[in-house]
Amino acid sequence: MPKFHKHIFVCCNQRPATDPRRCCDPAGKADLQRAFKIKLAQLGMKGRVRANKSGCLDQCEHGPNVVVYPDAVWYGHVTAADVDEIIESHIIGNKPVERLLIPDSCLNAESCPHKQRRGD
Amino acid sequence: MPKFHKHIFVCCNQRPATDPRRCCDPAGKADLQRAFKIKLAQLGMKGRVRANKSGCLDQCEHGPNVVVYPDAVWYGHVTAADVDEIIESHIIGNKPVERLLIPDSCLNAESCPHKQRRGD
Repeated sequence: MPKFHKHIFVCCNQRPATDPRRCCDPAGKADLQRAFKIKLAQLGMKGRVRANKSGCLDQCEHGPNVVVYPDAVWYGHVTAADVDEIIESHIIGNKPVERLLIPDSCLNAESCPHKQRRGD
Repeated sequence: MPKFHKHIFVCCNQRPATDPRRCCDPAGKADLQRAFKIKLAQLGMKGRVRANKSGCLDQCEHGPNVVVYPDAVWYGHVTAADVDEIIESHIIGNKPVERLLIPDSCLNAESCPHKQRRGD
């Protein structure tokens, strides 16, 4: 069998509610990852595309975060309402969803406008 | 800042001890992921290479499993003793560690010799 055509990692990290960095899955229920998984199963993509839980992806100020490999496409502020569009446009159509992309200038940056905003 | 040069996902999944599929991190301590993280920090690679916890990578019969993206290189039966070699040969030298590779024919396969062996 081939490698995964796309491998989607969905941050399911938790931190205490008082942590200024917040976290991507405060309820600890992996609802976003499950939404991807269910949609992929409905489309018969199991085994070709995987939606994986991940630990902290270290872009906390943009969370909830998702990264799609091998493309290395990063999405921020993703909700369950975005899952269909990401799968249809990007996973199937190879066209990343522009409106959800984390700008390259923000990735792994010491500071960015979003980081400041979360530190309010 | 650029995207991660390499993004290492280390399966930290747990299952009950009675589960025939076993799991990659029965102690639930993420020791393998931490070993990668410490070594990368020692080498000053933080922010360029990330060792991430992941949920089940779905190649359980080969575990403990590690996948390196964007290369999509899969390793099986990885232990803390392998971390230096993976980082030095693959992450720095771009030469995957052949002896630890999961064969393409096993990835996502319905059955493979390793799957049968774990079902003893």
